[in-house]
Amino acid sequence: MQSIFDLGLPGMEFNGPRIVIIGGVAAGATAAARARRQDETARITLIERGPYVSFANCGLPYRVSGDIQKRSSLVLQTPEGFFSRYRVDVRLNTEATAIDREARVVELTTTEEDGTVEQHELPYDALILAQGGSPIMPPIEGLDGPQVFRMWTIPDMDGVHSRIEQAAPESALVVGGGFIGLETAEAFIKRGLSTTVVEATPTLMPPADTEFGLRIAQSLRASGAQVITGLTVTRLAYDTETGRGTAHLSDGREIPADIVLVAAGVRPNTELAQSAGLEIGPSGGLVVNEELRTADPAILAAGDMIEVRRRVDGRRVRVPLAGPANRQGRIAAINAVGGSARYVGALGSSVFKVMEDTFAMTGLSEKAAREAGFDTGTMVVHRGSHAGYYPGATTLSLKLVYNKADHRLLGAQAFGAEGVEKRIDVAATALAGKLTLDDIAELDLSYAPPYSSANDPLNMAAFAALNDLSGYSPAISATELPVARATMLDVRTYGESSKDPVDGAVGIPLDELRMRMDELQKDARILVLSRDGYESHIATRQLKLAGFEKATYIAGGMLSLKNYRK
Amino acid sequence: MQSIFDLGLPGMEFNGPRIVIIGGVAAGATAAARARRQDETARITLIERGPYVSFANCGLPYRVSGDIQKRSSLVLQTPEGFFSRYRVDVRLNTEATAIDREARVVELTTTEEDGTVEQHELPYDALILAQGGSPIMPPIEGLDGPQVFRMWTIPDMDGVHSRIEQAAPESALVVGGGFIGLETAEAFIKRGLSTTVVEATPTLMPPADTEFGLRIAQSLRASGAQVITGLTVTRLAYDTETGRGTAHLSDGREIPADIVLVAAGVRPNTELAQSAGLEIGPSGGLVVNEELRTADPAILAAGDMIEVRRRVDGRRVRVPLAGPANRQGRIAAINAVGGSARYVGALGSSVFKVMEDTFAMTGLSEKAAREAGFDTGTMVVHRGSHAGYYPGATTLSLKLVYNKADHRLLGAQAFGAEGVEKRIDVAATALAGKLTLDDIAELDLSYAPPYSSANDPLNMAAFAALNDLSGYSPAISATELPVARATMLDVRTYGESSKDPVDGAVGIPLDELRMRMDELQKDARILVLSRDGYESHIATRQLKLAGFEKATYIAGGMLSLKNYRK
Repeated sequence: MQSIFDLGLPGMEFNGPRIVIIGGVAAGATAAARARRQDETARITLIERGPYVSFANCGLPYRVSGDIQKRSSLVLQTPEGFFSRYRVDVRLNTEATAIDREARVVELTTTEEDGTVEQHELPYDALILAQGGSPIMPPIEGLDGPQVFRMWTIPDMDGVHSRIEQAAPESALVVGGGFIGLETAEAFIKRGLSTTVVEATPTLMPPADTEFGLRIAQSLRASGAQVITGLTVTRLAYDTETGRGTAHLSDGREIPADIVLVAAGVRPNTELAQSAGLEIGPSGGLVVNEELRTADPAILAAGDMIEVRRRVDGRRVRVPLAGPANRQGRIAAINAVGGSARYVGALGSSVFKVMEDTFAMTGLSEKAAREAGFDTGTMVVHRGSHAGYYPGATTLSLKLVYNKADHRLLGAQAFGAEGVEKRIDVAATALAGKLTLDDIAELDLSYAPPYSSANDPLNMAAFAALNDLSGYSPAISATELPVARATMLDVRTYGESSKDPVDGAVGIPLDELRMRMDELQKDARILVLSRDGYESHIATRQLKLAGFEKATYIAGGMLSLKNYRK
Repeated sequence: MQSIFDLGLPGMEFNGPRIVIIGGVAAGATAAARARRQDETARITLIERGPYVSFANCGLPYRVSGDIQKRSSLVLQTPEGFFSRYRVDVRLNTEATAIDREARVVELTTTEEDGTVEQHELPYDALILAQGGSPIMPPIEGLDGPQVFRMWTIPDMDGVHSRIEQAAPESALVVGGGFIGLETAEAFIKRGLSTTVVEATPTLMPPADTEFGLRIAQSLRASGAQVITGLTVTRLAYDTETGRGTAHLSDGREIPADIVLVAAGVRPNTELAQSAGLEIGPSGGLVVNEELRTADPAILAAGDMIEVRRRVDGRRVRVPLAGPANRQGRIAAINAVGGSARYVGALGSSVFKVMEDTFAMTGLSEKAAREAGFDTGTMVVHRGSHAGYYPGATTLSLKLVYNKADHRLLGAQAFGAEGVEKRIDVAATALAGKLTLDDIAELDLSYAPPYSSANDPLNMAAFAALNDLSGYSPAISATELPVARATMLDVRTYGESSKDPVDGAVGIPLDELRMRMDELQKDARILVLSRDGYESHIATRQLKLAGFEKATYIAGGMLSLKNYRK
């Protein structure tokens, strides 16, 4: 198979460096376009093992759901388009089977549509590996059934789509409660399937902290889905005559599963790199330096397959997300043709739509921060997404994770119907700038009643965190309850308390507290509870100033406590 | 008039510092609540010259528009509520007429509902001035007509509201094209009035750069409003019999104006401070230090009346916005009772809804940056608000303003239907962290198809700015056109170009450019034009690499050029 560059093109001279890019989706496609913008003479070849190049893998579930009507809109670029705009030689259905680093040659195997297989070699001056990852197939009996799918490529998506159209499934099972699994679960729900999600860890969305996993589960359940956590699927059965499938769970339960989507994580595609003797790091990703070069300076890598610097603490991790992949592809291309761009690392910002709600996070979760050894503090607030007097405001739940010693922000998570991703993007920018809680308390964010409040939820969360750290108004996380020998003081109004009572709590509405302090013991450990944590902060100040030294409020109030009742 | 603290309250002892706060809206109300949380013994009095305390002044136009149905939701706190929760003595309809700094006494005049006037004195240990500003009434003949209103207080709002209900105006005139004027213009449009906005400066929204003022005008015109800029209103006439009003403009034109809203700017209420001998700065605001103390350490000040540090360059300016006012009120209260909190200054972030669109800005506009002496660079991009293949994406126009020498961001402005305030809040956070274009290019913002693209518009704008600064892909601002002796090269497709042709341009679609470069002169100054600036960047790279040294593209492409055709 000859290269278009060897064949010659009228009026063009391609005598520059031979750039071979393996992998044609996010990082690879970006690298190819950028390499051309760097060098009009470069001979750029893009190798893709699948039948599509540069497709919108993040959009696949939304095609199944019907949100995206036109399948073609997911194919962002074609080999023809790549050629006419960028003079890139795209080779589809082509697997890179080996790298001869000494000779600087890649061995390729192309499978034509008619099934013929052709093997060929491609020399390179610079090789960019952008092979991404592959879905992990967990050890479940019956994974080879006709009802079992993944959601990774356009053909995967087509398979799910036509299965729903043709086999008339009534029930769907999603194995795995991460981004792809839950986005596809939403698609199944929208298609009218009775949907179950099974996640092996204790809560959905394992990168998030527990309370957010529980909130996501609540959203899905409210939409009619069944959510099962802490169990695994052991066996999948399918009756080809009836079209009905069944899944057997590790506790012996059986659930209907006419169609099954396996989304149990992704492993990086490092086999080729490994067989070429390149180093794989402890995270499982390919090791690269800041210029995204491997130990072999002629081989660079980008995207889901590599190990990157986690910006918050410098740890080497895998961050398989589209944004970092695109920026890495750009940098790898610059360096492949002699530039010296540097990749600073990833924050791991992500966002995910769950029915009408949104969950987003950036930086370290509380559990990741503790695991990394930070002196970890957290604060949760539940505030209006915009001014309460302007119509349409919804409750936004925001959690800040920070280092107690120096007040530095480590991460943030948020859940709600509006403005979630805004607050997380602000937090991501705060992480990039190494801002502290003090900085965030003073952040001037844009305010008008349809968009926010004069003090944004981010300001409020930082205020509350600082008040906790200084002892001005100490708070306890809802996750730390119950506390032995403590008095729970409920300062909600009588109406609120009677609608949603708390066992064993002393009820004194906030506006009566000053007059009724003699009902409380001065030296008691008092845990003040309010609807969302704000009025209990006011009560805690009154108590502290009146000499109740051990007054503390429950951060996030009832709204946080509720997330711990499954 | 005795204080509630002197009268005595059952079971309470108020023998702490006497805190007097003059002004009961944003900064003042916040200061009162915070002072109580600092000190349960303080004797806190809140003086308000109007009949309402702590009302939502930012929400007033939305009550007129009908968006806010319940008038009462705009009254955030009542004197009774303030008393029961915070033990604050609120004095409504009370004007502070003088400060005796030596004796530490404020002289007050209260006008009761029955018209009786009572004068009294109030001693203070700490005085917090939070008197805000007042609308400027420009020199227009006939301003005393029954059809003329302001939009500053609850009674103002009630006046406009009942005027629309009772006098059945058909036409409305808004004098002044800033935030309040335009929000009220939108309210008039929604109420079915034939609405005209007259702004004396050349474009609407004077703090913004010209192109955004023009975009806002386009939105209003598309909603049926008339927008007149660069002219003033000289005279207002009103026929009480017919209920019809007329406005005479400085060019002799007459326009119908059955109801008139004057929103021609705000001046700080510094008369009291001035008469007490406190210093007024060059900006017209009261001078305070970082602790928000005036030269008299017993007098602090917060909110619209003070001069603050502009964070981007340290200049002392007035930033009359609700967010800063709230945070200043908090800090003034802490310091009034012996604390030592510091105010770092304001970024001036603001957001404004214009019909279905949003405009937001933070930091310095291009004109403010030039005026401040920065080596000012700008970049404009027009990108999808989220992934184009996911339904509902709209075009977001984003402008970054930066210092060329060190790449530091100085400000940002954005306009569009979705995600505008998100990008501006990210930019505000970047300003707080003193981030550079290089940092913004690498920002990891959260991405999923319903929310953004893998490279956010902020990343793209920073990429483009850096490519311009390095000469990799030089750009020229649409504001710099026309350029003498330059060749305009239109690289849009034939279809795009024929729909929206550009006079005198050479048309070569991008994908044909490599084959047709001989149609261009190597040493010509070539200005490359595309739809939004992105494809012209690709073309510019091709031209530069082919030896066309003076190739430059027009930042923002046709979408920017169009904003300069009124």
